[in-house]
Amino acid sequence: MNLLLLHEDEIDGQGEARLTGRRLEHAREVLRVQAGQSLRVGVLGGLMGTAEVVSQSAEALVLKVNVTQPPPPRAGVSLVLAVPRPKALKRVIPAVASLGVDRVVLVNAARVEKSYFDSKVLAQEFLEGLVELGLEQACDTVRPTLEIRERLKPFVEDELASWAPAGSVRLIPHPHASTPLKPVPASTHVVLAIGPDGGWVPYEVELFSKNGFAPVSLGPRVLRGEVAVPAVLGAVRAGT
Amino acid sequence: MNLLLLHEDEIDGQGEARLTGRRLEHAREVLRVQAGQSLRVGVLGGLMGTAEVVSQSAEALVLKVNVTQPPPPRAGVSLVLAVPRPKALKRVIPAVASLGVDRVVLVNAARVEKSYFDSKVLAQEFLEGLVELGLEQACDTVRPTLEIRERLKPFVEDELASWAPAGSVRLIPHPHASTPLKPVPASTHVVLAIGPDGGWVPYEVELFSKNGFAPVSLGPRVLRGEVAVPAVLGAVRAGT
Repeated sequence: MNLLLLHEDEIDGQGEARLTGRRLEHAREVLRVQAGQSLRVGVLGGLMGTAEVVSQSAEALVLKVNVTQPPPPRAGVSLVLAVPRPKALKRVIPAVASLGVDRVVLVNAARVEKSYFDSKVLAQEFLEGLVELGLEQACDTVRPTLEIRERLKPFVEDELASWAPAGSVRLIPHPHASTPLKPVPASTHVVLAIGPDGGWVPYEVELFSKNGFAPVSLGPRVLRGEVAVPAVLGAVRAGT
Repeated sequence: MNLLLLHEDEIDGQGEARLTGRRLEHAREVLRVQAGQSLRVGVLGGLMGTAEVVSQSAEALVLKVNVTQPPPPRAGVSLVLAVPRPKALKRVIPAVASLGVDRVVLVNAARVEKSYFDSKVLAQEFLEGLVELGLEQACDTVRPTLEIRERLKPFVEDELASWAPAGSVRLIPHPHASTPLKPVPASTHVVLAIGPDGGWVPYEVELFSKNGFAPVSLGPRVLRGEVAVPAVLGAVRAGT
């Protein structure tokens, strides 16, 4: 945890926040905070800065908050991500949040097991917890928008037009594509369609192609989702 | 497992291999192979191709091997990697192998806990197992060279000159560097120094700088090792 995240309504009129639960535990047991110490904090969806520890006990951590800095710039990237297996999802979502992705829609695909949609890890509250882990790691306060779509075709055909910002570039990374994935200027929003382990099936590649997604390659290596996502993000924003 | 890895000495004069253990189990329980079926195989350090299942039983999987294709090209990247915490190492090493990294030296750093060097996950045999997981994922047969150095300074000052290929570019990714990390042509070997969670300390950054490493930034976000490694690799080889 490189940044302690606060909710705006946790800060009172005097700029004081009283924390319990996971953040109290982390502050006491990992950071071993003492009264007077300064911590790096951020307000979810808002500014970042420091907080002085007013007091700490087994019951609560009381902080005097002073936030004046804006969070880091966004990646300018939206992800259409085939639902990973639950174990991988627990790593991909924090990674996606730490990389500053703007928007994620978790979609169904032929190679996604149906049972994943019944998994507890897809509960909105659990996903938001994973997002906060990523923000705490990266020192950011802005959550990506997270959505789930159980039907891929209507999402790609009907929703994507309004979902993706105007003028955005749509790319579908694929090991067998002939065009290498090249950096895209930071001013252009990028929508990436990242398949499940085993990849998109040909019908899905065709569906994305028909809807403006250009196939691009990171090379012939078959990468796991949790490796592919940062590799693709790194490549698409290289040098920006 | 997208590729079944074989050791050269497992293949007899008639091109037959008899497998037991983890690969037998995987073939029977996950792939549910049947006699006559074709599997994608690779010979460690050698060619890739297919193998026909001659027979399968609880005791052994017998394959008729036919390998004619070269493995995918290397990334042309060496990593100087501060030893991650054991749990992260188990994810980073397969990722590094799947990305085709040529050489990895796991080094000590101020923010690496001493106890990590006593961890079983740094045993060569365990590391090689992690490497093979990454190769099986990526469909590659070539292992990165793996070394461990408990003393950073003599490694950087004395060994790096002969360790890194002549003409290679040395980069140290750092969130506060002012130069963005840009793609490097595939023909130039790149040596990357990737710090521990919490980053290199100023003394270490200076040590690398003095020894030809240029600080480069992927942006102000603080990324975990397992996210930073693929992001940096993706960026440095973007478009190639």
